Parts: sequence; structure tokens; C-alpha cells
Amino acid sequence: MARLRPLSGFPEWLPAGRLVEQHVLDVLRRTFELHGFAGIQTRSVEPLDQLLRKGETSKQVYVLRRLQEDHAGHRDDALGLHFDLTVPFARYVLEDAGRLAFPFRRYQVQNVWRGERPQDGRFREFTQADIDVVGADTLPYHIEVELPLVIADAFAALRDVGVPPVRILVNNRRVVEGFARGVGLADVEPVLRVVDKLDKVGPDAVAAMLGTEAGATPAQAAAVLELANLHGADESVADDAAALAARHGVTDEMFATGLAELAALVGAAARRAPGTVVADLKIARGLDYYTGSVYETVLVGHEQLGSICSGGRYDTLACDGSRTYPGVGLSVGVTRLVSRLLSADLVTATRPVPSAVLVAVVTEETRDASDLVAMALRSRGVPVEVAPAAAKLGKQIAYADRRGIPYVWFPGEEHEVKDIRCGVQQPADLHTWTPPADDWWPRVVPG
Amino acid sequence: MARLRPLSGFPEWLPAGRLVEQHVLDVLRRTFELHGFAGIQTRSVEPLDQLLRKGETSKQVYVLRRLQEDHAGHRDDALGLHFDLTVPFARYVLEDAGRLAFPFRRYQVQNVWRGERPQDGRFREFTQADIDVVGADTLPYHIEVELPLVIADAFAALRDVGVPPVRILVNNRRVVEGFARGVGLADVEPVLRVVDKLDKVGPDAVAAMLGTEAGATPAQAAAVLELANLHGADESVADDAAALAARHGVTDEMFATGLAELAALVGAAARRAPGTVVADLKIARGLDYYTGSVYETVLVGHEQLGSICSGGRYDTLACDGSRTYPGVGLSVGVTRLVSRLLSADLVTATRPVPSAVLVAVVTEETRDASDLVAMALRSRGVPVEVAPAAAKLGKQIAYADRRGIPYVWFPGEEHEVKDIRCGVQQPADLHTWTPPADDWWPRVVPG
Repeated sequence: MARLRPLSGFPEWLPAGRLVEQHVLDVLRRTFELHGFAGIQTRSVEPLDQLLRKGETSKQVYVLRRLQEDHAGHRDDALGLHFDLTVPFARYVLEDAGRLAFPFRRYQVQNVWRGERPQDGRFREFTQADIDVVGADTLPYHIEVELPLVIADAFAALRDVGVPPVRILVNNRRVVEGFARGVGLADVEPVLRVVDKLDKVGPDAVAAMLGTEAGATPAQAAAVLELANLHGADESVADDAAALAARHGVTDEMFATGLAELAALVGAAARRAPGTVVADLKIARGLDYYTGSVYETVLVGHEQLGSICSGGRYDTLACDGSRTYPGVGLSVGVTRLVSRLLSADLVTATRPVPSAVLVAVVTEETRDASDLVAMALRSRGVPVEVAPAAAKLGKQIAYADRRGIPYVWFPGEEHEVKDIRCGVQQPADLHTWTPPADDWWPRVVPG
Repeated sequence: MARLRPLSGFPEWLPAGRLVEQHVLDVLRRTFELHGFAGIQTRSVEPLDQLLRKGETSKQVYVLRRLQEDHAGHRDDALGLHFDLTVPFARYVLEDAGRLAFPFRRYQVQNVWRGERPQDGRFREFTQADIDVVGADTLPYHIEVELPLVIADAFAALRDVGVPPVRILVNNRRVVEGFARGVGLADVEPVLRVVDKLDKVGPDAVAAMLGTEAGATPAQAAAVLELANLHGADESVADDAAALAARHGVTDEMFATGLAELAALVGAAARRAPGTVVADLKIARGLDYYTGSVYETVLVGHEQLGSICSGGRYDTLACDGSRTYPGVGLSVGVTRLVSRLLSADLVTATRPVPSAVLVAVVTEETRDASDLVAMALRSRGVPVEVAPAAAKLGKQIAYADRRGIPYVWFPGEEHEVKDIRCGVQQPADLHTWTPPADDWWPRVVPG
């Protein structure tokens, strides 16, 4: 049946893969909550005009139409699926501003949709896990330092299940903007857009594009590239940038501010999450709403996968006429991360089912007795299922084995429980027996 | 800004409401896993022809179109948002049958979409939490007994936070079908469809519709209504139905089988979840794929809300030509339930933010010291945030108060912590202090 072929760009996991994804989501949630972020969800749809407000046609928005309607209606009231969680969050903040305490700290884990061409690590439906802090009118710089460290915490908590270390690359838009202006490039937006392509197209192509798209002279382009090549895990990168600026006669104030901020970020990160955060002055992020720090995150050894967590500081995304709501946010690409963890066998689950115990059924007439055993074990928090049929006991054990359930319980006057991996069968007390901690729930472990 | 008006039918909760929803989801997940159900997720879209396979135009499917496309494409490759989790689950089973162990037990918590007219308890986007057990070729009847008891367990575990008790109403399609055939109504499908409307339109209208839509004589209609009026929480309801059948000369074998099954279900439920499961012979469920037990669930005292958990036995939903995959499933309407819990103030959260502690900042120069306090508390699992600004301490306490954070930590040579609700401030050891259990995390409690 051809129509049952999986849809490209719409990934699904088998139960064992879902356990890995669920563990990632659980660790993210716990980390975010430990840092005081409140969870929210927004609807999956937004009015189309909201989704396109920033000219985001590149995101290939999916528009909804009800089957019984002839067409999608006027653009004014047409609905589209959100392509990220930032735009809906900004709308949520505006809508509920009177009922939220600012700075508002929230996390949000939901699916988003983009009708792009699917490829490795790029999907049409995928899960994002976002954190943002949004202030009313003002938001201090130290939030830009804090948020990548929350992400560093989350990934540190994932290391022991086999998730590779991450490198969080940071830059500051003010540094690039100020420097570009300092060397005489007044129109900085195309500079940012072109520099963002450095890893993809290489320095020669970027130099050429800086000429054609940003009007840079070869000398200006070379200076911008020199800046973009700077990187480092401590404050010395700021010294290098300052020296470079001095050499090019750059005295821009925004440049100086941005550099001081970047140095503060890298310095704090070196103290609190050593080795994780690296200043990388070519990180520009294509989105035009970032105004300060920008972040990208690579999985060490899997850099070709692209960023698995990106974001930045934005000052004017949400604005209701009387107030603006500046924010800092980061978005984990959960599906991109999990698809790699699974396809590269980096992380796996100890079993694909929750059940630690299968209660055998001796005869269908005594199924009730097996159900009561299951109830007693569950009342102590042990995940249990009852054999689907009163087959020969060997067949019931084979059934447990096929499902990956480690223990089979035999009810009777004297209860017995068998560890089917080693074959040891022992008497067991229905009211005290528990599985060893390692077998209690499926665990997520290095692959 | 008119465009910021909430979209009717697309509900969103404030952070405190989301905590209630998250608790419901956590309890469902834990209960399902204790019963051996593995979690999966399916993509949100299905090919339109799959969604409409059962003629489900009443579900008002949302069709997707990419913004850059002129129209939704041929119906063959058009995609629609799923309107339930049963159709995608059936497709998932067919697609992955070779990699699943049967009977396959899964739970699935996801959003679904229906372009219906929104009203109380009826939404265009909402969350469902489904459990299903699917067999390969066969599935024993006892699964039909087991699944409503899993649901009873889940709702029992929600009682202590203020969720009202539930009543799970059960019937068996074979009883209605066999009885209808036994009184001479050969075409049972319209009988089921009409009986399903009894609560909505009343017995007189149903009697009339049985005549016009199912071709019933007044005597046949009266007999069907007599059956539909039977209900009870123990096996005696089966005796009543048998007596009624005898009075009408019904000797249908399917009727007898269905009645025995229903009696077994009610009997087991009376032993294992007393008072929760009630046989109600008017429950028919409109969906034509049910073939055995059918279930609906009402929140006691909120019956007008409609069913918050429905399902049944289906024999032919998934079939790949060589095998069929019969199943039993139930679907909790999480959004319908939570919207009532919130709107009727039945359940609430002790605070809207995760943070138990706000660490004060004495001066911006010593923010690092406050960050280190926060790290130390978090390392012991205490949710903490750091004050956004080194304002006057009274202002920082007011900030904690506004956010509902119970404790403010003052760093220094001698650390101190203040319970801002009673004002008591005491010295605290950074490496041993923990909040009382009741304050550690926000709790969900009766409203």
C-alpha cells in the first residue's frame, strides 16, 4: 500500500525511540523549572497576517482551510500553523500582559511546522523547546548571560545518557553592526545576512557577496571577514577584536558596548560552565529581529548537523503601542537532536515497554488472581502488565522476552518471580517485592 | 488591536492553568505506564484520503496548503490535520507492524483539530490522551474489561487534587445489534445512530426517528427504547436485559454473547473499581467502527459537559490485506476536562511559577555571588531564580510576592532566608537548607 509510505519530513519514532525523546523532554523541563521558567502552551495556529508580519515567507507557512470551505478565505482571517514558538509567544505576552508578572520567564515545548524541503536534520513537523525571558519596557543585559547557561545546564544533565557535549557559540549583533559601521558600511542588515553564510559558502564567496549585496570595498570586506574569523572561549577574544578595530580605526560606540557585553558573557560562562560557551564572531543569525547577543549550539562531533539550539536578544518583537517587551530566548531543536541520537545509536532505552513485570495467567478462570497481583504491585509503583492469554508458561515467558519485560510473576499459594534473563526463579512476597532500581523503569542509556 | 482577540475554539491557559493541565497529563502518563502502555507520538498530518476513509466529513477536517502553492493539490496527496488519534494510530500500526510486539499497548497524548463550531467543552484544537491495545488477528475480550479500569485508576489518582469522581458508562454494541435484529430490525446501523441521540433529543424524538430512519414499527421502537433505558452498576442489569429480550421473543445469539460480555465487564469493575463503572444500555457511540464494548465517561456533577473519555472495541479499523488488527481504545478529552476544572475553579495551583526561592541581589557588582547561591540550591533540586535587578530589598521582596515565590534568600557572610508569607527571617546553610516539602514545587490542589 503505497499510501502507507512514511511522509518525508514528518518523522515518527518507535516506542524505544520515543523513550529517548521523552527523556530529553523530561530533562529539559526539569532544568527549565529549576531555573524558574513556567511552562505554557500556545495554540498551533495564528492569523496569517501575524505569521507574515516579519516577511517570513521563507518559512513556508502552512495555511489551513476547512474541508467544507471553497478556499482559505480572506488573508485577514486565514489561519496558518506556527513555524516557531517565538511569534506565538510574543502574541501571548501582548494578549495576557495584564495577567503576567514581568520579567516573565517561560518555557514552551511544542511542535512547529515548515513546508520546507526535508533533508537530514530538517523536518516539516518538529518539536521545539524554547525558553524566553521577556521584560516590560526594559530587560537587563545579564539575562543574555543567564540563558545560554540554562541551556548548558540542560545539556550537561543529558551527558550521562550518551548525548555528546555541546558547544554554545555566542556573538553580539552590536559588535558586528558597530564594526561594519566603523569601517564605513552604513547598511548593516545585508552584512549580517551575508556573514551568516560564512560556514556554508566559505570566505571567498562571502567577500564577493559583501561587495555585491552590501556595497563593501575589498578592504571593507576583508576587515569584516577578519572580525568574523575571531573566536575564543575567554575574554581574550574581546581583546583581539578591540585590537582589530583599532587597526581599522573603528571607534564606534555600539561596537564597544557589544564587545564589553560579549566579554562579560564569555567570562561568566567560563566560570559557571567551563568549556561550553565560545565566542564566535561569525555567528550572525539571519533573523532580523535580534538586537544583542545571538547564540547557536553544535553537538560536538556532529557539527554538520547544524545548530541544535539557537536564539538571541530581541528588543521589538512584541510591542502594543504603549509598551515594548524586549526579550532573550533560545530554542532547542528537539527533533533534530533526537533524530541524530537515534540514527547514530548514541542513546538507547533499556527496554521499549514500561512494564517491569509480566504476571502470568495460569488459566483464564483464574485471570482475576493475576489481575489482583498486578494491582498490588502497581499500588507500590511497579509497572506491570498481565499476560494476554493463559498459554503454556513457556509461551508466556517468550512473550515477556519478546517485549523486553525482565520479570515474570507466577501467582499461586506461594508467589514466585523469575528473572527471565538469567532464569533464576524465587519465591516472592506480593506485598514487599520490588524490582531492582535498574529494572524498575526503562532507562535511557548510552547506545 | 482587534487581531489580538483570542481565537474562538483555540484555548490557551495562563501559567497557573497550565500547571493544572500538566498535572493531569503527568497523572495520566504515570497511570498508563504503570499499566504497561508505551508512549508514542504520530505526525499531526495524514493524507486526506486516509482521514476521509470512514466518510468522516462531520469532523470538519483542516486541509493544509503551503503558502507558495496555489491550491491544496490533488486530493491524493493533500494533507490534513488529524481529527483524532485513532486513525493515525491505526496507520502507525500498519506501517510498523513488523517492528511491534502484539498485543501492542500504547498511549498517545497529542493535539487534534476539528473545524467545528466552538462551544462549551468543544474546541477546534484540543489535547487527547489515548490508550489502545491492538492485537494481530485476534484480541481477547478481557482487554475490553481492562481498559475502562485503567481509566478508572487514572481518575482515582486525580481525586485528591479536586477532580470530581467519574462515572464510566459502558454498553456492548452486540447487545443493541442483537436485540434490534431479534425484534426484526435488520438494518442496525441507523438504530445505533438514532439511539445514540437519546440524551440529546429525548425518547419521543428517538421513537419517531427509529420509525423514519430505521423503519421500525411503533412496537419495535418501544422495545428498543425499553432496552436503552436499562442501566445499573452490577450484573443484575444483564438479568433485566435478558428478561426484556425473553418478553420480546429475542433469541439472537449475538445478543446473548454481548450480554454475557457486558455482565463480565460490570462484574469485574464492581470488584476492582466499585461504584465507577455503570452499564447504560443507551450508550451507542456514533462511530461506525465499534464492534463490541463502547464507553463514555461523565464527570459527576458536570454531566452536561458531555463525555470526557470515550471509546470502544473495533475489529476492522486497521487491516493490511493479509492481517487485521482488532483493538480496544479509550480517549480522554484532556482539554474539555481541564477547561472545566479551571472555569469552575475545581483545581488550582499553589503558585504560578516553579521557583521556591528568589535569591536577592545586593548590588549588580555582586550578582555573581547570588548566581552561585542559585547554583548551589539547584544542585540539590530546589527551583530558584535570581532577582532581575539589585533594587532595594523591599522591592525585591515585593517582586517575589507578586510572582508567588514563597522564599527570598539573602546572600552574605551569613546567609539568611525569609518566608515572605509570615515574615520570619532566619540564618540558613547554603549546603543543607531546603524548602518544606509543601513549598518545594508548585502543587496542584482543590480550588
